Amino acid sequence: MEIIIKPIGVVRTDVGDEFVKDSLEGVVGRIEIFKEYEGGLEGIEEFSHIIVLAYLHKVTEEQKKVLKVKHKRLLKLGFSLDELPEVGVFCSDSPHRPVPIALTIVKLVRREENILHVEGLDLYDGTPILDIKPYTPERIIKDITLPEWYVKLKKKVEEKIGRSLPI
Amino acid sequence: MEIIIKPIGVVRTDVGDEFVKDSLEGVVGRIEIFKEYEGGLEGIEEFSHIIVLAYLHKVTEEQKKVLKVKHKRLLKLGFSLDELPEVGVFCSDSPHRPVPIALTIVKLVRREENILHVEGLDLYDGTPILDIKPYTPERIIKDITLPEWYVKLKKKVEEKIGRSLPI
Repeated sequence: MEIIIKPIGVVRTDVGDEFVKDSLEGVVGRIEIFKEYEGGLEGIEEFSHIIVLAYLHKVTEEQKKVLKVKHKRLLKLGFSLDELPEVGVFCSDSPHRPVPIALTIVKLVRREENILHVEGLDLYDGTPILDIKPYTPERIIKDITLPEWYVKLKKKVEEKIGRSLPI
Repeated sequence: MEIIIKPIGVVRTDVGDEFVKDSLEGVVGRIEIFKEYEGGLEGIEEFSHIIVLAYLHKVTEEQKKVLKVKHKRLLKLGFSLDELPEVGVFCSDSPHRPVPIALTIVKLVRREENILHVEGLDLYDGTPILDIKPYTPERIIKDITLPEWYVKLKKKVEEKIGRSLPI
């Protein structure tokens, strides 16, 4: 079974892919929603945060076959590969996954007609947008439990850089 | 531009579509990940909650054209249509949207090989699954602001049924 999807918009940012990749907390950018869908944005500017679903179009067929991953983004913080646990791809946010859809929560700074100006974007210029949803209190689950490797890794990151960071 | 996606699994639940639709807090069910992707689930059982991205395959072409919506699910609670504000579709969780991808946070009860037993599912039996992501503390944004209509509607729901509910 195959599903055919027509994107509703595209990511625009003035920085290059490498800059986005290296940024730990995302970059400033714009979500350009195609004019035909502009009506669906009415009122979105009253939410401070939105959820962006995007299709990572640069992920290769080989990369879609990856089922075990390490949080390699953390190598930039001085971790060695051996320190990083290997986990199933669905336990991670890795872009290399069977269906490379990214879920990104960004800060919505302002709307200008069909353009959403956002902060905290970890998507490349040109990435197709599939959907926008508001970030509401229902998305907040307080009583969660996490794997030991996750808690340890998060603690190590905090020790290294002195603050919390998405891993 | 069109994107072709091959689902990684399917929703299984023993209740009918109407039962799922009428349930305010979701139903018990199973996420069946196809055997070829089972390796990617390794360790997922240590997370108490997961994010499920699913393709709402029963949404019609007409329903995909909807750009303004009311939270009609609340009619069940005794709201009148006039009481419900009309908002842009991207300000809502409506299944009727240009790209009908659902984002559902469910409780992961246990894993049995390629089957995830979950609670809080608002998806019909047979719905294709696109991706699974862990629910981690990074998904929790504490400092958010919300539209006035949203806050009012949420308060009205709480007054009507005596508890909070996703709207």
